[in-house]
Amino acid sequence: MFGAIEAGGTKFVCAIGSSPEQLYSETRFPTTTPEETLHKCVAFFQEQSKNHSIRSIGIACFGPVDLDPKSSTYGYITNTPKSGWQNTRMVGFFQETLQIPVAFDTDVNAAALGESLWGAGKGKDPLLYLTIGTGIGGGGIVNGSPLHGLVHPEMGHISVPHDWKKDPFPGICPFHGDCFEGLASGPAMRQRWGQPAETLPSTHPAWSLEAYYIARALANMIYMISPQRIILGGGVMQNLSLFPLIHTEVQKALNQYVRSAAVLEEIDSYIMPPVLHNRAGILGALALAMAIR
Amino acid sequence: MFGAIEAGGTKFVCAIGSSPEQLYSETRFPTTTPEETLHKCVAFFQEQSKNHSIRSIGIACFGPVDLDPKSSTYGYITNTPKSGWQNTRMVGFFQETLQIPVAFDTDVNAAALGESLWGAGKGKDPLLYLTIGTGIGGGGIVNGSPLHGLVHPEMGHISVPHDWKKDPFPGICPFHGDCFEGLASGPAMRQRWGQPAETLPSTHPAWSLEAYYIARALANMIYMISPQRIILGGGVMQNLSLFPLIHTEVQKALNQYVRSAAVLEEIDSYIMPPVLHNRAGILGALALAMAIR
Repeated sequence: MFGAIEAGGTKFVCAIGSSPEQLYSETRFPTTTPEETLHKCVAFFQEQSKNHSIRSIGIACFGPVDLDPKSSTYGYITNTPKSGWQNTRMVGFFQETLQIPVAFDTDVNAAALGESLWGAGKGKDPLLYLTIGTGIGGGGIVNGSPLHGLVHPEMGHISVPHDWKKDPFPGICPFHGDCFEGLASGPAMRQRWGQPAETLPSTHPAWSLEAYYIARALANMIYMISPQRIILGGGVMQNLSLFPLIHTEVQKALNQYVRSAAVLEEIDSYIMPPVLHNRAGILGALALAMAIR
Repeated sequence: MFGAIEAGGTKFVCAIGSSPEQLYSETRFPTTTPEETLHKCVAFFQEQSKNHSIRSIGIACFGPVDLDPKSSTYGYITNTPKSGWQNTRMVGFFQETLQIPVAFDTDVNAAALGESLWGAGKGKDPLLYLTIGTGIGGGGIVNGSPLHGLVHPEMGHISVPHDWKKDPFPGICPFHGDCFEGLASGPAMRQRWGQPAETLPSTHPAWSLEAYYIARALANMIYMISPQRIILGGGVMQNLSLFPLIHTEVQKALNQYVRSAAVLEEIDSYIMPPVLHNRAGILGALALAMAIR
């Protein structure tokens, strides 16, 4: 049996299990202070371990996080905007308190891993997973393992072509203004159009502009990493009518340069929604735990 | 002993060896027709195999190439602009003619592999290698292996922010106009300024604009892949005074968002020239051959 923690900015989910079909005793609680929240996790696993032997725990964590095993702050949440959670020790805390191995990665890398094992990413490598919602984040599986290095990817912060005449909105990223997240996150849509994305009718010009930015970002990702599949989740992508718009715009952006059937003929399955839906986080955490050798 | 072929658009280099220090019998000849050029390679290895047992051959190849082992055109040069070389069968030809295993990758992935084994990329993963010259190409090592998937990366074709007021030059990429390569390759510099890059004095504004585009492209790559090091080679980068300009512009582009000492304090070694210099191609090919299990 393995343990899984989906550590999100608004809620935590804990579970134990051995496969997506065998996930037991799931519990969830709001993210309050680190002390309270992490101790609720510990209490859950201590209770579970009375009846089950838990081999390891995986944590799919909101970020930014430190993933460098050589760093003195490995396994920490670092400079997050989430109040009270800056410099929170995650891995070390659970290892010491529960005395079991702990695997740790970003929520999006974990989701990518979950989808690659059990969802839309089976047999696809490189695989990219993007979430487009309150923020924009991206993770990936490359050559069999999650993608990180210096730190971890921050795919929401790449630049996309911004035609100020067509779209005078300056973007809302505090670091970069009109980066991808600054122009195309849920809050950016709300601020540009004066109403939440989910209240905009599907004929509103907001959606074609949104598809344009997402497609330009994906084109950059395709040129950089050459993924075999791209999975798009998150709040904004709940509007599934975005997908065909994105497909058309990606083909326009690539302009026949990438001569692959996946792009030219099968783009509906090349860029698609997650199969695990809102289970990607907790199942990604489970996958992380199971990947410990 | 291993065989190595650096297959370039203007010249081919063949060698045998077992390490960078033990590279023997190197030969080079201009790239003419596929028939003539490939048969010169075969003649070289047949001659060498009289005295040496060659276990495998690695080919570091100009592109685009097909790297998908499941494809019917695996190991081919595909839709290259190089006249006469479209749809040239490389791997199959050498395997059949010489009856030995053949490894095959892009010139830039091979260079990245060579640098990662013997050069500026030791212990750095992900590692990116970019060449900025006649064209712009990029390769990488991620989780221990070269980066490819759907096809192979075409990092020269990502978009970079283009302020038409500051730089009205429309770019020269036949597919995308003002993509990175369209704005910042050697030929783009020549066309924008009316003289070859190597004749522009180091005080010319061409270089700060060039550094700006390169830095914006690198910032996108850092957000996408989070490399532990980026190596910049190619004709344009022979002007080493570009490096400090790029370092400053990358820090400006990232704007303190990536909180890593490599970016904030040690950027001189984070973004640096190749250590293998013009040997990266042939040594990359050797590394490919040695990587066959």
